[in-house]
Amino acid sequence: VTDDEYLRTRIASVSPDEIRVAGRDLATELMGKLTLTELAYLLVARREPTPGERRVVDAVLVSLADHGLTPSALAARLTLTGAPESLQGAIAAGLLGAGSVLLGPAGDTAQFLADTLRDASDHSPEGLARAAEQAVAACRGAGRRVPGLGHPVHRDADPRTARLYQLAAVEGLLGGHLRLLEQVATAQETLTGRRLPINGAGAAGAALVDAGIPPRAVRGFVLVGRTAGLVAHLLEETEHPLGMPLWLEVDRRAGT
Amino acid sequence: VTDDEYLRTRIASVSPDEIRVAGRDLATELMGKLTLTELAYLLVARREPTPGERRVVDAVLVSLADHGLTPSALAARLTLTGAPESLQGAIAAGLLGAGSVLLGPAGDTAQFLADTLRDASDHSPEGLARAAEQAVAACRGAGRRVPGLGHPVHRDADPRTARLYQLAAVEGLLGGHLRLLEQVATAQETLTGRRLPINGAGAAGAALVDAGIPPRAVRGFVLVGRTAGLVAHLLEETEHPLGMPLWLEVDRRAGT
Amino acid sequence: VTDDEYLRTRIASVSPDEIRVAGRDLATELMGKLTLTELAYLLVARREPTPGERRVVDAVLVSLADHGLTPSALAARLTLTGAPESLQGAIAAGLLGAGSVLLGPAGDTAQFLADTLRDASDHSPEGLARAAEQAVAACRGAGRRVPGLGHPVHRDADPRTARLYQLAAVEGLLGGHLRLLEQVATAQETLTGRRLPINGAGAAGAALVDAGIPPRAVRGFVLVGRTAGLVAHLLEETEHPLGMPLWLEVDRRAGT
Amino acid sequence: VTDDEYLRTRIASVSPDEIRVAGRDLATELMGKLTLTELAYLLVARREPTPGERRVVDAVLVSLADHGLTPSALAARLTLTGAPESLQGAIAAGLLGAGSVLLGPAGDTAQFLADTLRDASDHSPEGLARAAEQAVAACRGAGRRVPGLGHPVHRDADPRTARLYQLAAVEGLLGGHLRLLEQVATAQETLTGRRLPINGAGAAGAALVDAGIPPRAVRGFVLVGRTAGLVAHLLEETEHPLGMPLWLEVDRRAGT
Repeated sequence: VTDDEYLRTRIASVSPDEIRVAGRDLATELMGKLTLTELAYLLVARREPTPGERRVVDAVLVSLADHGLTPSALAARLTLTGAPESLQGAIAAGLLGAGSVLLGPAGDTAQFLADTLRDASDHSPEGLARAAEQAVAACRGAGRRVPGLGHPVHRDADPRTARLYQLAAVEGLLGGHLRLLEQVATAQETLTGRRLPINGAGAAGAALVDAGIPPRAVRGFVLVGRTAGLVAHLLEETEHPLGMPLWLEVDRRAGT
Repeated sequence: VTDDEYLRTRIASVSPDEIRVAGRDLATELMGKLTLTELAYLLVARREPTPGERRVVDAVLVSLADHGLTPSALAARLTLTGAPESLQGAIAAGLLGAGSVLLGPAGDTAQFLADTLRDASDHSPEGLARAAEQAVAACRGAGRRVPGLGHPVHRDADPRTARLYQLAAVEGLLGGHLRLLEQVATAQETLTGRRLPINGAGAAGAALVDAGIPPRAVRGFVLVGRTAGLVAHLLEETEHPLGMPLWLEVDRRAGT
Repeated sequence: VTDDEYLRTRIASVSPDEIRVAGRDLATELMGKLTLTELAYLLVARREPTPGERRVVDAVLVSLADHGLTPSALAARLTLTGAPESLQGAIAAGLLGAGSVLLGPAGDTAQFLADTLRDASDHSPEGLARAAEQAVAACRGAGRRVPGLGHPVHRDADPRTARLYQLAAVEGLLGGHLRLLEQVATAQETLTGRRLPINGAGAAGAALVDAGIPPRAVRGFVLVGRTAGLVAHLLEETEHPLGMPLWLEVDRRAGT
Repeated sequence: VTDDEYLRTRIASVSPDEIRVAGRDLATELMGKLTLTELAYLLVARREPTPGERRVVDAVLVSLADHGLTPSALAARLTLTGAPESLQGAIAAGLLGAGSVLLGPAGDTAQFLADTLRDASDHSPEGLARAAEQAVAACRGAGRRVPGLGHPVHRDADPRTARLYQLAAVEGLLGGHLRLLEQVATAQETLTGRRLPINGAGAAGAALVDAGIPPRAVRGFVLVGRTAGLVAHLLEETEHPLGMPLWLEVDRRAGT
């Protein structure tokens, strides 16, 4: 019925004796054949990754999985304190902080670079430099931060950035988005006189797009990696809780 | 300071020029070397998986990633309708339904099998059969469902179950938890006269524990796979939305 | 169509020129006539509260709105640190910790008391005392905590409890659930030799049911109050943030 | 210690025998004296509302509490299908859709009007008309929608809008924000030739600010009302579930 057109999905379908995911039989064509990263790639890019793309994408997901006792990990662990029976709630709480300040910049950078590249006719180094200058100037004119630059802890250099560039180069995937991001950093320094390093989230966003992930999928894609980090924090929280003592300490100090 | 003992974490630490995850240097020892699945395993099991363990774990995560327009996927997509700028909120909404009825049974089965196995002195086939009978009888006595059995759609057999058993056998990982789960299904049939198939979530939980994942980590671990499915649904929702037309249809039909 | 039966809702319906909520015209019969508390009551109890019921219900919601820098408030504020543009995500994170340990006990106590009362034929003081003894013994036999008793901070007496009992008495609403809860505390002391005070959440749950809220609605109902507290925390967080400095302090101390 | 300065909060503090909220003793000065709406107001505005302000604020919260089987209500109910034991998770899922498209516009309108009014030197009708024209033109120039106008269902007039204006007038609270919003609707019609009605969310945002709620608090404040509606949906879902049959219907139609 045409009436049902809006309910069609390419992602998966289920019948009593078969499950199809991404158009393939789940049991015989996917399980035991693809890694989770490869399936995630297949679902958003609608093709399997090459070995090089797979390696870069895994490196990105690994790079963003965890950063210690971040606001995201703390929110997840404090949520478990009140609702230990609802693990999915604690994971959800941890992911909810992946917004415009933390983790979200991976997707914002991907989209910013993709938009800039789409509007640029000339992808030579000089052309990218000009496109970067215009894009950075436009950000500054609109009072917006340039995405992908600067980090509160890694002030000089983010250790993930150089590694992602190196891996992409080795795999032949140092494409327009990663190269444009370097020009963006240069343009930002030229325009402001202040060097901000490319941060790990920004490099991750650029690397994912150069490795074939659609820019619009990046903001969600990185959450697959972060979920893995949160699972580890919550296992540790059940064994070695910090939520309750942190509450009591904060409460005591707030009251003094 | 001993005062800070409770804030220690084994998962990750960060300094301006180094990020350590699971005790290793993120940039040089993890990125480009481990897949996301391997990192997730390392974080909860505190060692890298063998190739066989890695294959079974990936098969489980792939098997649970998506099941079509489930309540979880619908909740995520409907959340995006109201808050398209907050992708992490839509992912979180999708994960929040992973509870005692959907997806959560993977972890509940893992814990149930691990508890039963821990209390059983005899792990021979006969010993497992006796342990299964006692555990099933205890569930029924307490008015609880036996975890891991039955499915609203796959009433005769869940296509993921046989495949997971086959993969575990091939990889030499058909261990106590998977074997006990078979005895549980048999005991349930004997006690009730009604055959319920082992469902995909139950088999997944048993397979993860036999592949080295701690039982307590299973409930969260499967969410890593589900996040990948949700990312795909939300990308599709931005391109081909169902949230708004579904709302309008439901609203119209509710009002008639 | 019978097919649409499952989509019917009593809560609200919408047409282009009218919105009906709880069967009444929203604009002319509810707005300007009912407080939010009265509407919430009407929606779950399917009648308006009496003035006394309204006063007790408001007192409960006020009593549970906020408790300072609790795990719930901290989780909400830390979530805003990463996603300041997604206020609803930070509220959601704060509510997710309202589980079996924190805030959820209001609903658990309501259900426990309602179940016990339903099974008791004799509601005289002696009958309630016997019912309480049996219910407490059953909890202890099953290894479960008795809901509604004890608090990590208010070890001798929770200041909200006496006030709720007093207000209920003044309004003629000191009913079976509040009276049974006193017997439960006595039975627990008799059986264990240790006095645990009735906590504010437990008294809140009992008071809501005595004031006409269905026991099953209590767990959700208290979240209306808590949302108000979280809104205040998030406004303060935008003006006087603690998320970022707390992260940096925790990170520094975790690394020493 | 100055070190603890960042942990201070004005909202609440707790000691073993006293709880203070908004600087007052919770048990004796708030419980039984303030409605939940009055407490919520006190927490964000730092003073109690006048009777008129209280009436307008309650009317706003009542007006936004529920709108039937919206994406928000459906997401909450579908979440309960998978995790019936985690009511707070279902409430959270319902709130997560309160973003830029649904419900969030109340806060966006409040902020837009407050910013415009702050920059306008002349608050006479003519001054407001000019300020509205400039603000609408600026929105259109930047490719942004003008907040507070238009609704997918109430295409000619939102029944809540006229009622809020009437109540505000009766209570002497038809202030700069509500009046400016009328000018905004006029300016939008002049500039585009197309009349869009002031929607209920927009009028709600303007009315809250005119009634003393800080503009930055509006986006969260309206969620207090919405939580009440979601509680009612989830109670109904436990008695008369739509999540499971909706899933099965959607699944069946998606597969045809």
